[in-house]
Amino acid sequence: MAASLGRAAAGNGGPSAAGLLRAGLLTRLQTSASTLRTLLSNSFSQNIPSCLWKLGRLNHVAIAVPDLDKAQSLYKDVLGAQVSETVALPEHGVYTVFVELGNTKLELLHPLGEKSPIASFLQKNKTGGMHHICIEVDDIKAAMAELKKKKIRILSEEPKIGAHGKPVIFLHPKDCHGVLVELEQA
Amino acid sequence: MAASLGRAAAGNGGPSAAGLLRAGLLTRLQTSASTLRTLLSNSFSQNIPSCLWKLGRLNHVAIAVPDLDKAQSLYKDVLGAQVSETVALPEHGVYTVFVELGNTKLELLHPLGEKSPIASFLQKNKTGGMHHICIEVDDIKAAMAELKKKKIRILSEEPKIGAHGKPVIFLHPKDCHGVLVELEQA
Repeated sequence: MAASLGRAAAGNGGPSAAGLLRAGLLTRLQTSASTLRTLLSNSFSQNIPSCLWKLGRLNHVAIAVPDLDKAQSLYKDVLGAQVSETVALPEHGVYTVFVELGNTKLELLHPLGEKSPIASFLQKNKTGGMHHICIEVDDIKAAMAELKKKKIRILSEEPKIGAHGKPVIFLHPKDCHGVLVELEQA
Repeated sequence: MAASLGRAAAGNGGPSAAGLLRAGLLTRLQTSASTLRTLLSNSFSQNIPSCLWKLGRLNHVAIAVPDLDKAQSLYKDVLGAQVSETVALPEHGVYTVFVELGNTKLELLHPLGEKSPIASFLQKNKTGGMHHICIEVDDIKAAMAELKKKKIRILSEEPKIGAHGKPVIFLHPKDCHGVLVELEQA
């Protein structure tokens, strides 16, 4: 809802709502309110190609940690959060622990195997640190097409199946002000 | 809810629910269901001092950025989120922009003044990066007392009034696996 409002405000050109009203549509008795709503809605969507996809909620914040047991204990025993068991995801090269915060979750990540995607991050950040944020989208292919047009680099040619079994892409941190942004089709 | 379940599971010692039942409480006709619930509830809370405070939802993820206009434009014009105007918070040494994600928000931070708390972070991270996460608590004084007992360092002796006008504390990143954690009294 918020996202579509943001995009609607950015739309311009084409027939405006005011223009449709001036054209006398409201004076025709046979034009019902619902028909008018449809006309207005079409008028907006024609002008805003970015409405093809919509940004959603923050799915998770991923935190890479050098010691998964200690990190799990911090969130569970010290901070009192509900914390999952450790889950091994060999196809993603990580062990994960989910910390439930009610409105979203933290994902604690620890390397699994030699080719783990977070191994180099932990070499640079010995005590651990925030690795990425994941935001949901409703149509990942439409998002990719638009992001490419807007010169945001995507780290894979096609979406991959992420840790939650859903299609995901990662945006280049240098195009997102130093933040690795994951988009997940919700 | 999730957090209290986590702590309840950790409780032990003292009179148990089973013990109370075996004592014949249920056989007394004058013991109503509500009285029994109160007794059981007291039995749990007596055993779990950490129940004095409760962890809540993720309030925000803070991202420090070297160029606020460009970052604002990324989230608004490229990703289509609802994004606030720039807000100057001179007493906190930052300009902020809020990115609404439905379930939580991102806070884009840019230094204001020479003593800005994020200036050194941006010197080390030229393109920007995730600066901290903020989690809500219901009683910040109780949280502080327990965190001190558990040897988690807090960056101030007393809570300060944060950017949202509410009491906040920051936990030492070295005690939180490389993550600067802000706790805000909701």
